[in-house]
This record gives sequence, structure tokens and C-alpha cells, in this order.
Amino acid sequence: MTLKEVAELILQHNNFDILTHNYPDGDCIGSAFALAHALKQIGKNARVITTDRPKSFGFIFEKYSSPDFKSEYVISTDVADEKLLGVNRKIYEGKIDLCIDHHKSNRVNAPYKYVEDNSAAAGEIIYELIPLLGAEYTREIADCLYTAISTDTGCFCYTNTTSRTMRIAADLIDLGCDSAYINKIMFETKSKARVELEKQILENMIFCADDKCAIIYTTLKMTEGLGDDDTEGIASIPKQIEGVKMGITIREKENDYKISVRTNDGVDACAFCNRFGGGGHAAASGCTLKGDLNSVIETLKKAAEETL
Amino acid sequence: MTLKEVAELILQHNNFDILTHNYPDGDCIGSAFALAHALKQIGKNARVITTDRPKSFGFIFEKYSSPDFKSEYVISTDVADEKLLGVNRKIYEGKIDLCIDHHKSNRVNAPYKYVEDNSAAAGEIIYELIPLLGAEYTREIADCLYTAISTDTGCFCYTNTTSRTMRIAADLIDLGCDSAYINKIMFETKSKARVELEKQILENMIFCADDKCAIIYTTLKMTEGLGDDDTEGIASIPKQIEGVKMGITIREKENDYKISVRTNDGVDACAFCNRFGGGGHAAASGCTLKGDLNSVIETLKKAAEETL
Repeated sequence: MTLKEVAELILQHNNFDILTHNYPDGDCIGSAFALAHALKQIGKNARVITTDRPKSFGFIFEKYSSPDFKSEYVISTDVADEKLLGVNRKIYEGKIDLCIDHHKSNRVNAPYKYVEDNSAAAGEIIYELIPLLGAEYTREIADCLYTAISTDTGCFCYTNTTSRTMRIAADLIDLGCDSAYINKIMFETKSKARVELEKQILENMIFCADDKCAIIYTTLKMTEGLGDDDTEGIASIPKQIEGVKMGITIREKENDYKISVRTNDGVDACAFCNRFGGGGHAAASGCTLKGDLNSVIETLKKAAEETL
Repeated sequence: MTLKEVAELILQHNNFDILTHNYPDGDCIGSAFALAHALKQIGKNARVITTDRPKSFGFIFEKYSSPDFKSEYVISTDVADEKLLGVNRKIYEGKIDLCIDHHKSNRVNAPYKYVEDNSAAAGEIIYELIPLLGAEYTREIADCLYTAISTDTGCFCYTNTTSRTMRIAADLIDLGCDSAYINKIMFETKSKARVELEKQILENMIFCADDKCAIIYTTLKMTEGLGDDDTEGIASIPKQIEGVKMGITIREKENDYKISVRTNDGVDACAFCNRFGGGGHAAASGCTLKGDLNSVIETLKKAAEETL
């Protein structure tokens, strides 16, 4: 379906729940709230459903409120798989009417899907959708979309950044988005707890496959009391080291380990994660493993040595 | 003078030396080599004069060569003051014919000056100058200019980034510049030695003044064998911590300690450094202290507690 058809479909409805994924990031939050603002502006009711509300996005949450209403149409933004709905999965699984996403690996089961995998962020799609809905760009929308796009591109640094990404960001700056504030919060502020966590991560880093793979991990003890803000983006740490082609981040959760894989030089992170039932993008993917930490590390080391 | 007049002035000459500043960064290197490529393309001779050639810019150096020739016209790019010519100062001081820059504080003494301080990088000016010279943008030029602009904006993150900056970067991406490679080299690569250094810095970080001040230090032992690339930018580490208004970096040198002070929220780093005979900008200043490390730390802690 075309984006124009997406807009026409949305315009047939009036009361929306907009879903985001668990461990919400700037793209799902920014995309969902930008869409909610636009829908509200054209006289619809919309609420954004999140698993939690990280305080770094407070400037987005505080500028949107919706009245109480009964939803009749469910849209997901930036959700690649219904498994990623987290605590909202039990309510919304199988109930998504329209899925808007930019993940090539999208597996959401929905009657209507618009997946544009050449977009660096779902925010780019929402940027183009808004005028098709007959809504105007506002500063609030610009802040949401700049947050979406800047965070999913690591402030325009990742390889997913295209000239279209840059031109959209230019338009958002011209619309008055507070890029200085957003960049400071998203890219230049670390909590003390985060600094302590980074120190521990660096102390425990593991190299394998002739130093072409670096593995870091966080345990429940290391992240006790920390928010998502404090742990966000750690997956980019191992990939940055000179000579490393695959950076693996292991995060201990209550019942399993969440694995994030970031790669350089064309190494296929998605294929790597597929081996363990996961997926994502070619240079950034994820999966889940069970067991104890040492066995998880050994499993990943073995797979990395086979891949590299 | 207008940029068109700058182009007309340049076109009256044939053999150019293009000057850069000491401790060369992406903007002076990228701007100078982009201009050199353009001049060569339109049949002129041009060479770029640098104080040294950091290996991270190797991809720029290796793509430009000039025949031997006698220069008759000297242009400086991104040089704010002739003092900054470093080892080239004795040859070129008072000899600059045309100064192209974006520093408001520019003090270069030259008969012709084009200083555009709303440009995030000198590279933005060169981008607009090239077609006025009758030259075409090439991939090599695009690589130089993307390097110039991305480095001077911290990959489009600093507050000097404008919508014009973003649109120029979009054009450069469309021209085929290797933004992925450049971003990776400039922003996403840390040596293992740098990672080890960061770990040690974090282990030894000191907070004072109710956590409004964070102090880090490097000793000669910690930085033994490390290059400028490995230690660059560490002064931004303490300032990034949530709640910190003043980040102080102490670097042990052979005979004294170099102090860098970075501040947030309007705290005057320059006034702080003035107390110790130093100075600089309101948010980034420096000074030098003598003594042993512990006494230097205590002196700075006391001063920070008085200031904050």
C-alpha cells in the first residue's frame, strides 16, 4: 500500500491507540507522539501506549494529553514484532489494525502494513504521512520527529542516515524544533549511574575471534535500580573499538539474556541473530538466550568465531 | 566583500598556497583540500600547507597531489589567528593574501578577508565558493567538505548546526561522499588504548561541590605511548554527567599540569581559569598548575566549591 492509502485508511477512523515497543526509544516514542499530535489536530482522539516512560523523553510526554475515550483502531509505530509489545502484548497481540514501521524484518501480524525499510527511522515515514492526513507540522511535532530521527541515526552518524534523513532534519530545524536541547539530552548527558555502569562494562569486556569481536555484558546486579535511560546505547560501545567487526552486548533480564549485536564492514548481524531466533537490521540486530551468563558468553563466542 | 568577489579575486591568480592551523582538525584539512581540488580542476596550481598530517585524515591526503610550483598567492582556511600557523608561522605571518574563515574572533591580518561566523564550519563557505570558481563538485571534494562540516559540528550534534548545515550535508551525500566511512573514522572508532584510558579515568573520577563539579585526570603513566588521537576529547567526559556544571580535566605534563575546564548552565569557565593565570571562552577554558597531583586536585576542588 502507498502512504497516501495509509492516510486514507487512518482518516476513516476516529479513536486511536498508538503502540510503541518495549524498552521504548526515541524513534517509537517520537513517531507515536508526532502521529498522536497530528491526529488530535485534525479532530481525532489518540493516545500513545508505552510500556514505560523514560524520563529523558519527559519533554515529549508533558506536551501531549488526550481525553478519555474508547479506542476503535490500533496503529503500531516502529514495532517490528508483536513480541516487542512487552507488558502490553496480552492486550494488543493480534489486535493491531495498521502497522507502520521501517524494520526489514517486520513480522507484525496486521491487516494493513506499511514497512519502508529504506527509512532510517519510523519518524521519517510519519514526517511524510502528516501532510497526507491534512495536518500541519507544529513545533511539538517537529520536536517529536527530530527526536525520532536523531536517536535512530545516532545523531546522523549511523550508516542508515541518507540525504533524505538530513533534509527532513533540516526542515524540522526550520520548523523550530529544539535540536540543541534534544541533542544535549539524548547524546551529551550521562547519569552518574551510567558512568559507573560504563566503568564496570569496560572492566569486564571480552575479546574473541582475533579481537574482531568484542563482548560486553550487564548483570541484574550491575543494573539494579537503573532506568532504561541509564542503560540505553551501551550496545554501541564494543563496536566502536578499532578493529572490531562485531560488538555483542549481553543484558541479563529476569528470566533470560537479551543480546544486541552491532556490526561493521558488512558483517551480517541479522543472519547472526537469526541463528538464535532473533533478527533486525543487517548492522544492528538482537535475540534472546537462556542459561547462565558463562554459557551464554561461550555460545556467542563460538558463533562469532564461526562467523568472522 | 561577497563570496562572488572572493571567487573573482582567486580567479585572477594561478599558483596558490593554502594554509591550515596547527593541531589540524577536520574543518581546516577538509576545507583546504576541497579548495585545492577545485583550483586544480580549473587549471590552477595549489598546495595545502599543514603543520602535520594526522593519520585519521589519510583518506584525504592520499587523494591529492600537486606538481612542484612557485606560489604567488596565499589563502588561509579556518585559521582564526596567525599565531595558530604553528611551525609555518615564521614563513607565512603577514603573507596571507586572502583569509577565509568562520570564527567570529578572527584576527588574521590580510588585505582580503571573508569571515562568515554563522557558518558551522569553514567547509560550508568552501561549499558555496566552488561553483563560483566554475569548478564542479566531485566525490573527492564531497569527502573533504563532509569531513570539514561533520567534524566541526560533532556529527551535526553541536549547537552551531543549522538547517543549512544539514542541507549541505544532504547534497554531499547525494554527491557520493563516503559519509559512512568518514563518520566511522571520525566519531565511532576508539583505539583499545583509548578504551583502557577511559576506564582508568572513570575509575579515578572525583566529585565535589555537591556533585556539581567532576574532576578527571591523566598521569604521564596513563598516557605513555598514546597519540593525540587517543587522548582527544577526554575533557568533554566530566561535563557530560547529569547535574555537573563544571567538568575539570587535569593532564600531567613533564613539568606541570594542564587544566581544562568545561562548564554548563552559564558557569564562567574563563573567570575560574583567570584565578590561575589562564583563560579562554565562557564554557571552555584552560590554565596550568604546578605541584604534585594531590595538591593540584585539592586546589581545584577548593576553587570549584567557592565558585559553585
